[in-house]
Amino acid sequence: SNRKVMVLPGDGIGREVMQANMKIIDWLAKYRSLGFDLSEGLVGGAAYDAHGTPLTDETLADSMSADAVLFGAVGGPQYDDLAFELKPERGLLRLRKEMDLYANLRPAIVFPALVDASSLKPDLVSGLDIMILRELCGGSYFAEPRGIDVREDGSKLGYDTNAYSTPEIERIGRVGFDLARKRNGRLTSVEKSNVMHSGVLWREVMIRLHGEEGEGVELSHMYADNCAMQLVRAPKQFDVIVTDNLFGDLLSDCAAMLTGSLGMLPSASLGDIDPDTGIPAAMYEPVHGSAPDIAGKGLANPLAQFMSFSMMLRYSFGQAEEADLLEQAVSDALAVKRTGDIMTPGCEQTGTDGMTAAVIDAMDRL
Amino acid sequence: SNRKVMVLPGDGIGREVMQANMKIIDWLAKYRSLGFDLSEGLVGGAAYDAHGTPLTDETLADSMSADAVLFGAVGGPQYDDLAFELKPERGLLRLRKEMDLYANLRPAIVFPALVDASSLKPDLVSGLDIMILRELCGGSYFAEPRGIDVREDGSKLGYDTNAYSTPEIERIGRVGFDLARKRNGRLTSVEKSNVMHSGVLWREVMIRLHGEEGEGVELSHMYADNCAMQLVRAPKQFDVIVTDNLFGDLLSDCAAMLTGSLGMLPSASLGDIDPDTGIPAAMYEPVHGSAPDIAGKGLANPLAQFMSFSMMLRYSFGQAEEADLLEQAVSDALAVKRTGDIMTPGCEQTGTDGMTAAVIDAMDRL
Ligand SMILES: CC(C)[C@H](C(=O)O)[C@@H](O)C(=O)O
Ligand SMILES: CC(C)[C@H](C(=O)O)[C@@H](O)C(=O)O
Repeated sequence: SNRKVMVLPGDGIGREVMQANMKIIDWLAKYRSLGFDLSEGLVGGAAYDAHGTPLTDETLADSMSADAVLFGAVGGPQYDDLAFELKPERGLLRLRKEMDLYANLRPAIVFPALVDASSLKPDLVSGLDIMILRELCGGSYFAEPRGIDVREDGSKLGYDTNAYSTPEIERIGRVGFDLARKRNGRLTSVEKSNVMHSGVLWREVMIRLHGEEGEGVELSHMYADNCAMQLVRAPKQFDVIVTDNLFGDLLSDCAAMLTGSLGMLPSASLGDIDPDTGIPAAMYEPVHGSAPDIAGKGLANPLAQFMSFSMMLRYSFGQAEEADLLEQAVSDALAVKRTGDIMTPGCEQTGTDGMTAAVIDAMDRL
Repeated sequence: SNRKVMVLPGDGIGREVMQANMKIIDWLAKYRSLGFDLSEGLVGGAAYDAHGTPLTDETLADSMSADAVLFGAVGGPQYDDLAFELKPERGLLRLRKEMDLYANLRPAIVFPALVDASSLKPDLVSGLDIMILRELCGGSYFAEPRGIDVREDGSKLGYDTNAYSTPEIERIGRVGFDLARKRNGRLTSVEKSNVMHSGVLWREVMIRLHGEEGEGVELSHMYADNCAMQLVRAPKQFDVIVTDNLFGDLLSDCAAMLTGSLGMLPSASLGDIDPDTGIPAAMYEPVHGSAPDIAGKGLANPLAQFMSFSMMLRYSFGQAEEADLLEQAVSDALAVKRTGDIMTPGCEQTGTDGMTAAVIDAMDRL
């Protein structure tokens, strides 16, 4: 098989939902003859515990030579006091940067069965299906200079740089126009061009790119603060939102939470397409974190991990049929069982294993 | 009178709601013998139209020598294509910076009469009363270097710096502990210390300050993306949130919108206390913008402006009694009349004048 997948469960519930995902992979091997060449590695706190670093060079190399990476979650309170460069998150950030996964796709979808789980009123969110496209390799997360300096008077200065270049904006902008074209044709570019110079350049490049390559897409611009407001006020006004790394971090979490489906939401982080294989550099990851409070208890909702795996089937391996099957099974399973995070009265509550079994049952029946 | 107030209506509905506010000021002069020494100036697009700059040195000097500034709103589509330094917002930003108004208080309150106007489910927001304290003179808004450079290959680099120094964090932190002490004793400090060096220093200083001066206040820390989520999930968990300029911009707009009371929310921007007068440098401003879509139609809700003026009475001039009176009148008026933005079935809809008259009626009766 040429489907080389690097599996990085990480920490906390990341390990539990990844274990559950293995059952889905086994099912596909058994009943659909869909084989993967799997390797597993440590990342985050687990890697720190074993090797004193949140990502070893070896695991990074294995990830880069794989066709796709399936990621769980990282972090935990026991790592809170580690130095900046040793924290679990650094493993994730290093993967994003070294694999040059600049396009982070974060769908915010309300599953019909979960409309009532949103904190927003049902009519504002029912049928919601927006895509947040977050630039993932630049801006405040990586640009230089950054650090903490001690000044002459003994006080300190902590600083980060939010920098974007023309080519960095162009490549994420292109993904935005492509995505919008495949969806409802509307792209909202979000920045603070009234305050930030990086935002001025961002808007300038988006406008030019729209003229050159944006045919069939309606481009609009919105300030990031207004976008945070509008997501709460009337989220259905959006189709695709494209924004920088830091704004994307806040806005995608806000959007994810308002769906009420946080435990259900996947993400894909994509880089350039390999000219030899035709496959993009790619990592797939649930939007939720490592949830230390429920870790190890068998309570975690595995559906975001499954949906991330389904994105992998679709975007990395072109297995649309199996992706459809898995997504349908997830949707069917919701009618039968629910983990605690998405419980609503009248449903039967279960844990990670029960939820996984319900999905596999549904796959059997499809 | 030594209550010198500089009035800056600005653009769009800023002018209409400020005009309405003058009726409140007249009432206080007539029935409470409360006099103000008022001057008026241009800011934003209005200043640009008259003088080619969004804030003249003269208006800035007048604002700095006043005891307090009452601000309306700035901006409008006709100024969209102006150069960065000429845009209406620059007038506002220059006032904040030159007057060193580093502490921006943004209450997010749900008025009982408006619970149903929120996009969140009523039980999540009824009784909501949180305070977002935003640092207003540093970070990505002002720190250097910033700009757009043309590189050797002809492409551009747009960059901004998010820098915070120990004293900058200390002075806003102190305001945070003070506010929390006067409220429910809980302060949540929000940053991205898992990613940004400015955030690492921010957290470090907040922890030290808590040990030194935070008695009676419970301090917790939250990442900004998680805060955006938690505001949507369960906003009542917060008391005071303290955060930097850029995060504060997004989070306060998000919080304001979820109250359903956007047209009602005031803000205060405070600087250091003048040792001669005992009065802080101060500017009071509604949270809403200039609303070009409804400007000039007499439809604007003046209540956020009135509430801002009420904050001025309280914080700058110690007129708690009059502030209470005005706030009670606003609350009473809501039972009688509503502008379009806060209409709910069963209420009588009105415009700026009608809403103002309802407040003045209520003051007459109190
Ligand atoms: C864990 C953290 C470093 C990460 C980020 O800030 O990007 C996370 O919040 C995310 O959104 O994937
Ligand atoms: C108008 C704009 C410059 C301003 C800001 O970004 O601070 C506004 O959004 C605010 O929050 O007061």
